[in-house]
Amino acid sequence: MLKLYDCETAPSPRRTRMLLAEKGIEHENIQIDLRSGEQMSEAFRKVNPRCTVPALETDDGVLTENAEIAAYLEALYPETPMLGTTALERAQIAKWNWRCEMEGLMSIAHALRNSTPAMKDRALPGPRNIAQIPALAERGLQQIAWFFEDLNEQLKENEYVAGASYSVADITATVVVDFARWVKVFPKESQTALLEWHERMKARPNYSA
Amino acid sequence: MLKLYDCETAPSPRRTRMLLAEKGIEHENIQIDLRSGEQMSEAFRKVNPRCTVPALETDDGVLTENAEIAAYLEALYPETPMLGTTALERAQIAKWNWRCEMEGLMSIAHALRNSTPAMKDRALPGPRNIAQIPALAERGLQQIAWFFEDLNEQLKENEYVAGASYSVADITATVVVDFARWVKVFPKESQTALLEWHERMKARPNYSA
Repeated sequence: MLKLYDCETAPSPRRTRMLLAEKGIEHENIQIDLRSGEQMSEAFRKVNPRCTVPALETDDGVLTENAEIAAYLEALYPETPMLGTTALERAQIAKWNWRCEMEGLMSIAHALRNSTPAMKDRALPGPRNIAQIPALAERGLQQIAWFFEDLNEQLKENEYVAGASYSVADITATVVVDFARWVKVFPKESQTALLEWHERMKARPNYSA
Repeated sequence: MLKLYDCETAPSPRRTRMLLAEKGIEHENIQIDLRSGEQMSEAFRKVNPRCTVPALETDDGVLTENAEIAAYLEALYPETPMLGTTALERAQIAKWNWRCEMEGLMSIAHALRNSTPAMKDRALPGPRNIAQIPALAERGLQQIAWFFEDLNEQLKENEYVAGASYSVADITATVVVDFARWVKVFPKESQTALLEWHERMKARPNYSA
């Protein structure tokens, strides 16, 4: 059975949990306590030397990036496609998932990791320490606000983030909106398409996976 | 016929050109002069409001992100697969392509865009201006050096970046190594696996696409 090294409160492994839930894939769940630094322990380094979660143990080895995990699960569990079926769907999902990662998750991570006192010298995940850059935290806040504008525009024309079907891009975007609260950024009241989409996402069973 | 809005000297559209060449897909090529700011012109905004290249005009509309373009072309031109065939191949290619983007291309872009005087207030691509952060340029240089270490380790065990076959991850990694020269970062002489792989990449017809 698949074994997911997870942290219930963290945004990256939540993407994997939501994907596993949507595809209905059973797995064993092991919690890694990021607050106490368990990801840096010798024991966890043996699972994932990159010291990050998610880490998904499979028959083909341990998978550590969400892009990797999504490609793997889509190939082995093609029912409930989450990366699209037609060429255009695949393209739009890849595009919006990428934008949600780069302009959404990365911006929030920049804002959080470069400002939180508890993350001093932990401005990037992984085994190597790196100093915070306060100006990058500010830039992150600006970028996430811009991304919410663009996402709201996209959702005016589309029921889901990448078009007419629920996809991995909706999972990533859901995590973006919820993770943004950590840095006190919320969709504006005027961004009604984004807010209404988020309510639809909250109603789905995999929201609380 | 596909129409590629391109800039011969820029790293992002080079990824698209190399992919089109590897798959043997004919296309019309239109050069956009990034140095004179042609990407910000009214005419180009009609093609791509995001003001970036590559922009690939297809029967299904204009595609603007490399992730989007690769997913689209792989679906329509599956001969010469570049995203893998088995689940494990797909996973490893997705992982390494992502790492090449995040730890490679992004780091170099941070180093370049946050230091070059000509890029004042253009620290991010796209239609919105944003100020440079000099400390982020330094962090970018550190990150690209770390990524070269990891890539060299990976290439000690693998002929290609993501395993036994040439893939889109090799294209992205090739562009990483060549783009790093712009910020005067080169593989170390001791990183022989990386250097030898790069020589093999230079010998391929799509290197000069």
